[in-house]
Amino acid sequence: MNAEQRCEQLGIKLPEVSKPVASYVATVLSGNLLFVSGQLCTVAGEFKYKGKVGKEVSLDDACQAARASTINALATIKQEIGSLNKVKRVVKVVGFVASAPDFYDQPKVINGASDLLLEVFGEKGKHARSAVGVAALPFNVPVEVELIVEV
Amino acid sequence: MNAEQRCEQLGIKLPEVSKPVASYVATVLSGNLLFVSGQLCTVAGEFKYKGKVGKEVSLDDACQAARASTINALATIKQEIGSLNKVKRVVKVVGFVASAPDFYDQPKVINGASDLLLEVFGEKGKHARSAVGVAALPFNVPVEVELIVEV
Amino acid sequence: MNAEQRCEQLGIKLPEVSKPVASYVATVLSGNLLFVSGQLCTVAGEFKYKGKVGKEVSLDDACQAARASTINALATIKQEIGSLNKVKRVVKVVGFVASAPDFYDQPKVINGASDLLLEVFGEKGKHARSAVGVAALPFNVPVEVELIVEV
Repeated sequence: MNAEQRCEQLGIKLPEVSKPVASYVATVLSGNLLFVSGQLCTVAGEFKYKGKVGKEVSLDDACQAARASTINALATIKQEIGSLNKVKRVVKVVGFVASAPDFYDQPKVINGASDLLLEVFGEKGKHARSAVGVAALPFNVPVEVELIVEV
Repeated sequence: MNAEQRCEQLGIKLPEVSKPVASYVATVLSGNLLFVSGQLCTVAGEFKYKGKVGKEVSLDDACQAARASTINALATIKQEIGSLNKVKRVVKVVGFVASAPDFYDQPKVINGASDLLLEVFGEKGKHARSAVGVAALPFNVPVEVELIVEV
Repeated sequence: MNAEQRCEQLGIKLPEVSKPVASYVATVLSGNLLFVSGQLCTVAGEFKYKGKVGKEVSLDDACQAARASTINALATIKQEIGSLNKVKRVVKVVGFVASAPDFYDQPKVINGASDLLLEVFGEKGKHARSAVGVAALPFNVPVEVELIVEV
């Protein structure tokens, strides 16, 4: 099964890609590396989750937010290269988690991103990763995910 | 008009590049990707802006700080490759904003970087981007900007 | 002297690489760039340093933590490519420092990483770098270090 088929089987609907509201773009291809802008956890264009993880946002919700951010990343990738099947390898994920000062489970949050990538891309979805707890994120979202993929 | 001419027209004077005070360097070229170290918002070698955005530093000043950081980045790029005209594409920007816990306008701050890149490089200046709010930055500056460009 | 010999001379013993406890991997090679996952400062598998730098953790200890994180990174690199001698260049380091809000010496902390890379790789060890202060890190460690190396 390929990545597009897996998305369908998992019931993942890739959203419309909203145009970045600034002088940047969602993705840049350089050689065979596709750099994806930090994606926020909008669901159907709305910010479903808001606040800091370990305070207003639970671990479970943060995990879902990481998953939602990653689905948005897949949508931008598809828009750029036409099909997720053209992804040769997910290379790198950086997961930024807006964290209460005493919240230390950033890896569990970003597993919401990593698990999705494995579900969609199988072995090709295995990536290098950093997960860090930041002070605040745009629009008070709990999670921002950026990716590099090889096409 | 090329990038060097645009800089001149915009009245942007690239500063002297100060040597990193540690075991690292300002830029590393690997293949045709030039990785630029995180740049701070010094203006004429001084830290003009200090503090956290949303607390001691206003949005407008933070924007100027992001612009100043990016001008410093351009100076290091020029030093490495001789001319900004050799930049084929700005690939990726990460903007770290030292943020008060309730400051969520990191994208507006980093527009100070993105807008400058667009002014200087035109279409080639459009980049993938992440903007995050961090707890603290070196020397208490409000903004640090790192870049990857294709040459 | 090559990198493996320098490690020996410096008395650096590369630890066993622990398998990431999630759907990601320690390293991904794409072209000739090896992306290394964010490494934590475990020493002999234990979290020797815990807390925020500038509060529970001193600058000196944080420096040692950055060094320990980097030794762990070297271990994962060696596991992936067989020998540190195959590293052509250390390209990029990002150092995340869990920081008290008024701690601004992130560069001094991450010198613990940069100095080690210079000791082990000599000129090839000179890298582009960003050092930022984050709100919290996994397992309450004070430092996380990620690397890109060219092989």
